[in-house]
Amino acid sequence: MLTAICTACRSSRMGPLLRLALGCGLVFAATLASAAPAGDVLQQIRAFRAAHERVVLNELVHLLAIPNVARDRGNIRRNAEAIALMLRRLGLQPQLLEPAGAPDVPPLVYAQWKVPGAKRTLVLYAHYDGQPVNPAEWVTPPFTPTLRTAPLSEGGAIIALDSPKATDDQMRLYARGAGDDKAGVMVILSALEALRALHRDPTDNLIIAFEGEEEAGSPHLGQILRDHRALFDAQLWVICDGPVHPSGRVEITYGARGDMNADLTIYGAIRPLHSGHYGNWAPNPALRLARLLASMKDDRGHVTIPGWYDGIAPLGDRERRALAEAARYDGTIRRDLGLAAAESDWSLPQAVMLPSLNINGMRSANVGSEAANVIPATATAVLDMRLVVGNDPQKQFDKLRDYVRSQGYYVIDRDPTPQERLAHPLIATLKLRPGIYAAARMPMSDPFALAVAAGVRAAAGQPPLEMPSSGGSLPLSVIKEALGTPSMVVSIANYDDNQHAANENLRLGNLWNGIDIYAALLLHP
Amino acid sequence: MLTAICTACRSSRMGPLLRLALGCGLVFAATLASAAPAGDVLQQIRAFRAAHERVVLNELVHLLAIPNVARDRGNIRRNAEAIALMLRRLGLQPQLLEPAGAPDVPPLVYAQWKVPGAKRTLVLYAHYDGQPVNPAEWVTPPFTPTLRTAPLSEGGAIIALDSPKATDDQMRLYARGAGDDKAGVMVILSALEALRALHRDPTDNLIIAFEGEEEAGSPHLGQILRDHRALFDAQLWVICDGPVHPSGRVEITYGARGDMNADLTIYGAIRPLHSGHYGNWAPNPALRLARLLASMKDDRGHVTIPGWYDGIAPLGDRERRALAEAARYDGTIRRDLGLAAAESDWSLPQAVMLPSLNINGMRSANVGSEAANVIPATATAVLDMRLVVGNDPQKQFDKLRDYVRSQGYYVIDRDPTPQERLAHPLIATLKLRPGIYAAARMPMSDPFALAVAAGVRAAAGQPPLEMPSSGGSLPLSVIKEALGTPSMVVSIANYDDNQHAANENLRLGNLWNGIDIYAALLLHP
Repeated sequence: MLTAICTACRSSRMGPLLRLALGCGLVFAATLASAAPAGDVLQQIRAFRAAHERVVLNELVHLLAIPNVARDRGNIRRNAEAIALMLRRLGLQPQLLEPAGAPDVPPLVYAQWKVPGAKRTLVLYAHYDGQPVNPAEWVTPPFTPTLRTAPLSEGGAIIALDSPKATDDQMRLYARGAGDDKAGVMVILSALEALRALHRDPTDNLIIAFEGEEEAGSPHLGQILRDHRALFDAQLWVICDGPVHPSGRVEITYGARGDMNADLTIYGAIRPLHSGHYGNWAPNPALRLARLLASMKDDRGHVTIPGWYDGIAPLGDRERRALAEAARYDGTIRRDLGLAAAESDWSLPQAVMLPSLNINGMRSANVGSEAANVIPATATAVLDMRLVVGNDPQKQFDKLRDYVRSQGYYVIDRDPTPQERLAHPLIATLKLRPGIYAAARMPMSDPFALAVAAGVRAAAGQPPLEMPSSGGSLPLSVIKEALGTPSMVVSIANYDDNQHAANENLRLGNLWNGIDIYAALLLHP
Repeated sequence: MLTAICTACRSSRMGPLLRLALGCGLVFAATLASAAPAGDVLQQIRAFRAAHERVVLNELVHLLAIPNVARDRGNIRRNAEAIALMLRRLGLQPQLLEPAGAPDVPPLVYAQWKVPGAKRTLVLYAHYDGQPVNPAEWVTPPFTPTLRTAPLSEGGAIIALDSPKATDDQMRLYARGAGDDKAGVMVILSALEALRALHRDPTDNLIIAFEGEEEAGSPHLGQILRDHRALFDAQLWVICDGPVHPSGRVEITYGARGDMNADLTIYGAIRPLHSGHYGNWAPNPALRLARLLASMKDDRGHVTIPGWYDGIAPLGDRERRALAEAARYDGTIRRDLGLAAAESDWSLPQAVMLPSLNINGMRSANVGSEAANVIPATATAVLDMRLVVGNDPQKQFDKLRDYVRSQGYYVIDRDPTPQERLAHPLIATLKLRPGIYAAARMPMSDPFALAVAAGVRAAAGQPPLEMPSSGGSLPLSVIKEALGTPSMVVSIANYDDNQHAANENLRLGNLWNGIDIYAALLLHP
């Protein structure tokens, strides 16, 4: 990035002193930067970032054009190499870490920044892989980054990357990974670049860790950390992932829910049947799936599976106060999402502190113009189960499987044999997907975390909203289990970034603000 | 077809007399045919058909290679023209009938065969359009007819069309429309050809009618019949469509259920949401759809919608006896379909004499490798409602819509506005698709129908199974309403033909037997 042509510095609006401070000249304003009080440093960070927005945007567009679904191993490696190149340009020595003996795994891109005299080490984490895509659902292709003047929902028009307005705050960059989480990768890289340019050392030794299969459930992260334990001697991880709070306030969270997914398939006849010749006599697996799923929640949106909410670790006073504060926004969020009412009688902050059960997707035969007059042969749902501290993933899955059995189903993990079909009126396959996270939470009163939060607070416009845990899932438990190190999360993406869905996007103002915040965080008191 | 090269006649196994009877020579054995008693005529029909199987197979393959989804107007017209050409080769004068002032509608291919001295007129009907296809679900492309040595489910291997075994009874021809209903078109054309070759006139004047949008619900058939009423002066329609009974017995039915389909969509938030950040708080439309569908049937498989079974026309003694006879096969059919139990406590023949409610397809977001960790924004089901005599289609649909309303839904027929989303916690769109059939039934004791059935009985190996109504739907009510003429159905396709589903196929033995039966039917006493 440092070697990229800095067209911004050619701007006639910029004086010679600022040009020096930006590090584009041969002479560096080192003394100016190191002597400046906190407020001045923040101002310098902002000025550097503002002048480099076009470079950062171009780098991000370049990175987003490389497909990043974790199972697409060739492209995943291209992503890792592109990021390693950017670290090298910052003067760091990146490594691509893999688990011992598993060279085909998406590598963890790793680098260190040793700071003379620093007493503690901070790990900065983001992930460069993204959720799977169904290109048919995207307005523009997921790996053709497309800049728009506003969100699609507000009629945003495509605008050229070299337009004078291309870096304005309200612009939206559409691509898989734009918000989740190549924005995180770019924010960390750009904050490091700002410190380099201003000749400031971070407060702590830094370790940079960019994962390549977070959206696949981080199946190898634990092994990579254990295999390279000596490289990860640190006291705290800061995770740059997830959106800001819907109110626009930067969100600091001290934990994340765990997550696991399961595929549930219900079987009818051995082949799709004519719905006229067999309708109302041959079992319809779509209806059976509907009945089974419908029975899993009550009218208040509470999961009815026995023991679902057992064993949840209690919250402290500070955590409960944080939830109550965040609940103030429920009405605004609900209206913004076009919802007349919530599903459950919990507040949103309460709901995300509980284990969840959600249908991610459901399919049986075809709908729309491909629909035919059949009784489908199978019906499938993908279930998402979020976990909180106190939940054992396997035990939680066992509750689900036992529940399906209690509804009369013969539960297996492969297609039924002809004999099984004739022996069991109700047959289901239920398979846990690989990539299971447990939940993790650190105390909101941890001193290192409080210091980092103070850095965030200094740069954020509004005071950050602090939450005991994110509703989303991050590999915090994997890190905790492998290394014993706690993690906090500082999120910067726009909350309406369509993460995990089609037409994912990043609001550029969030990118710029995120760079300022992370640079300030690195210079925390 | 008559002008196609008859390679079969070159067979060394065939004597000169038979060659004459087959009509391939210049001298016709007219006196032999007209003087022959019924048994001899049947034998001649079989011999002609056996010798012409290769020609018929090639013609059918040619026809199946033309895509035939009703909305694909260009290809539909190609189908109609190919069929008209075959009628012309039989010495008939085909016409392509369209409704007045609607030239873009799939035409009805029409021809007449006037018989000197005939007192009655019979209409022979089949349809050349097929159900929509999802090519991804097909083992070989739906419009690349592929011959296999056995069903796919039994590991049938692809065999070349010019193989010496290509016309064997057990061969399966895979393509959309193979069973439903280009087999019907081909059986009628080939039966006519057999009569021409044997210099036999049919017992009745004949009208040939091949429809091109039956699978779309015959939206223009009524208008075509009314606009060309003078061309359809007949006493009975014989419909060649649908499979034989699962026992292998040819099925004669004297009615058909009506049919209509509706699209039901349930709405969640305005966009798919991250299932971690909003799970258990934002409503999940997939779950809501599941709850709504699940509530529509009870544990016995009976529809719970109030009044669903009201107003059904009662059956006579003859009809009830026929149902009881057919119910003997329930166990065999169930086992053949790989089902441990039926959905309902009705016998299959009882079930298809009742109005049905079935889920044809269901979809919300994605499953499989495209699944993402989202709360979907919408969930959709396609519902299939079969109707019996006594059901008014609109009233039956009203019962469904009223039921959805009774479950608390705000029911509309378009996407909700932002204001509606905020005003109504439960929103559904429910839209009836075009193409609605009412049910129709004629008395099993009708004299003309009894005479036709006698012709079928003479040629069928096993005695035909007679049923008051088919479970499937055919435009019998459209014909009845437009012309006042009753219809009976003589089905010939294999019952495991995957009609309406992927990998539709025709067992060639059923095609050969069907030609014999229809030729015999045309020569009924």
